[in-house]
Amino acid sequence: MDLRTPKGTTDYPPAHALLYEEIVNKTVEIFKVYGAQPIDTPIFELKEILLNKYGEDTKLIYDLKGETCALRYDLTVPFSRYMAMNRLKKIKRYQIGKVFRRDQPSITKGRLREFIQADFDIAGDGLPMVVDAEILSCVHRLLEMYNIGPFVIKISDRRILMAILKVAGVQENDFGTICSTIDKIDKLSKEDLNKEFTSKGLSSKQIEEINRYISYKNEDILEFLKNDKIIEECREAVGDLERLLKYTKIYGCSSIEINLSLARGLEYYTGLIIEAEYIGTAVGSVIGGGRYDNLIDGLSNKDKVPCAGFSVGISRIFSLLSSTKTSETEVFVSCSGGLFLEERMAILNTLWGNKIKAETFYTKRYNLKEHKETCVKKGIKWLVVVGQQEVEKKAVKLIEVEKDQHEEILLEDLVKKINN
Amino acid sequence: MDLRTPKGTTDYPPAHALLYEEIVNKTVEIFKVYGAQPIDTPIFELKEILLNKYGEDTKLIYDLKGETCALRYDLTVPFSRYMAMNRLKKIKRYQIGKVFRRDQPSITKGRLREFIQADFDIAGDGLPMVVDAEILSCVHRLLEMYNIGPFVIKISDRRILMAILKVAGVQENDFGTICSTIDKIDKLSKEDLNKEFTSKGLSSKQIEEINRYISYKNEDILEFLKNDKIIEECREAVGDLERLLKYTKIYGCSSIEINLSLARGLEYYTGLIIEAEYIGTAVGSVIGGGRYDNLIDGLSNKDKVPCAGFSVGISRIFSLLSSTKTSETEVFVSCSGGLFLEERMAILNTLWGNKIKAETFYTKRYNLKEHKETCVKKGIKWLVVVGQQEVEKKAVKLIEVEKDQHEEILLEDLVKKINN
Repeated sequence: MDLRTPKGTTDYPPAHALLYEEIVNKTVEIFKVYGAQPIDTPIFELKEILLNKYGEDTKLIYDLKGETCALRYDLTVPFSRYMAMNRLKKIKRYQIGKVFRRDQPSITKGRLREFIQADFDIAGDGLPMVVDAEILSCVHRLLEMYNIGPFVIKISDRRILMAILKVAGVQENDFGTICSTIDKIDKLSKEDLNKEFTSKGLSSKQIEEINRYISYKNEDILEFLKNDKIIEECREAVGDLERLLKYTKIYGCSSIEINLSLARGLEYYTGLIIEAEYIGTAVGSVIGGGRYDNLIDGLSNKDKVPCAGFSVGISRIFSLLSSTKTSETEVFVSCSGGLFLEERMAILNTLWGNKIKAETFYTKRYNLKEHKETCVKKGIKWLVVVGQQEVEKKAVKLIEVEKDQHEEILLEDLVKKINN
Repeated sequence: MDLRTPKGTTDYPPAHALLYEEIVNKTVEIFKVYGAQPIDTPIFELKEILLNKYGEDTKLIYDLKGETCALRYDLTVPFSRYMAMNRLKKIKRYQIGKVFRRDQPSITKGRLREFIQADFDIAGDGLPMVVDAEILSCVHRLLEMYNIGPFVIKISDRRILMAILKVAGVQENDFGTICSTIDKIDKLSKEDLNKEFTSKGLSSKQIEEINRYISYKNEDILEFLKNDKIIEECREAVGDLERLLKYTKIYGCSSIEINLSLARGLEYYTGLIIEAEYIGTAVGSVIGGGRYDNLIDGLSNKDKVPCAGFSVGISRIFSLLSSTKTSETEVFVSCSGGLFLEERMAILNTLWGNKIKAETFYTKRYNLKEHKETCVKKGIKWLVVVGQQEVEKKAVKLIEVEKDQHEEILLEDLVKKINN
């Protein structure tokens, strides 16, 4: 029997699962600091909900057999469906869960078919760029908190990208597919990129025009746009970005950089787009997001609910951290000169009742030296040893493993001693 | 467009999601007190792994289209696959996650197609009933911790059930299907139960014989078995249960009750079986489990790894608790006599930087009275008001909403004040 996990999926052994738990808990803490509320939605959605949302990536969706359902591809569309279904117009919510993409998996690039995303979104009307600035502030604080190293938060505006395509004379029908190609700028060589543009029907003049904008990298990028013919097509977006930079300065966000090559393949973005990465790492973007003002409206045809938010690729954050801790146990209960099974049970019961993390062994065979090694390996601080002499005195031997110090301690004092 | 969630699934709005979060966190805390380590496995498994594990319920498994995969039905079989795949022989692990059963959903009975289980299992050799007693101790502590009311932990042993069937002359091939029927004793009337037995080929004499055992309810159940002809077929199991009761007494587990009608439909149990419920509630069993010594061996054909454990039906625990809290926000930042947008941003940045949960509003329109109401509704303790006078003094007005007391406080003292 094939005992592997399905293609593109993996198990998380204790050391990994504990690190995941820690990353998720710390992420939730920051989300709550920003006043966000959790929601949860099913792992699968009616298939219809997921259609026409992900551009060329729609083919990566997993369908359920004999059902009109499909596994969710992200948490953004289910969130929008939740808002539309309940006719909600305002929320700041977070959601953490697995999403599924039937992509070509690559362990080295941290790309799996099943992975964990942590999403933070703000829905509702607001003054220009106020929500967008808060989104970036939260992104910035998370990236600092993970403490992985220097990072950059690349931002752009979908409206500027549209202006570039318009100025280059790209047909509006082709915007989606050309965006998908621009999105690959970091993955493809310049040659391959241009080849893909050509295959999608662009002339060399059009390609040159697009490249002139998307490869512009200086700091005065907004000035460049303002002094270019393109400004007629994107005056509002450029003004919004200026305002955004003013606000994010108040929020103390350094490391923000405008990058016009940012495209993001997903069809639903309408304004700000965001991609953040830790500099010099192999996994690429760890947070992505932006503004999607029409997604909820597109589902319900009733309410226009402006939204902006982002997803943290928890699995990618994980791959940049190292996991060493395998257990949180504080006490191991051993014995000497006999099994003292029932005495050990009574001690465990006292420790557990006081919320002290404790374990013992279950076998007939016992070996104090081996138990000491278990403590060292698992990082267990205390080793309790039960023996005849101690039982008679209603006491135990307590060993502080790291210091290899031991003392006799009365049972009634054990909890107090360990908690100190 | 149909905006509902798929049949048998549901969304969790903030009040529900926060309660889920709390239940899960408290459950994990107890699991860790018992020294358990987390693992995580994929949402779907190779289909082959899930076959022949769930008796008649195998038909309830969701398949993925175009893949040889299926959504997991529980967390026990994936855990066993993990153990077999990695050739592990010993672990105490927990895992919490969604599982999927294409069953007829019933909201009132808390039965959904997607629901959350929290599993705790101990794998590895051990002295008789030591692990089993620890499993029951953990079940008992969880049921106390949820603080829902009086509960009963029903236990039995699969070997006694087999003995009953043998004594009644049931063919060994039919054991599985007859167990499935016995498992329904609490759901069906006696008449319907007997009808189902008959339809599965049992004679009225056989039915009478089975009923004589499974409906025996007195406290001296082990004495009854010891003095019955059946003891020849289940001497070891009865001895084990006696030992188990001695150990669980040391662990302070009251509320344990032997119940011979306990069958549990799943095919993989080999010894102890457990079902716990809160007395007088409608949702039925909230924890189920037992010993499954052959499951890992059956997958790998290599290593016999004895295992026992249980699943907490987190969704059922949820349905027995009431959720009121919708947010954990501590501070709402409002204004008076002007928007003071950038001043509010600066205040938020200070609060967020100090991990104080805070939010503001984003619109052009503002209404202090409305913001006060928001605080009351969401349980937000503090309302910070920014006005011209305060800005000039580098201060804010701080309102303790519940007491409706306000004071002027310097910006530099705000964090300290709120944290006190």
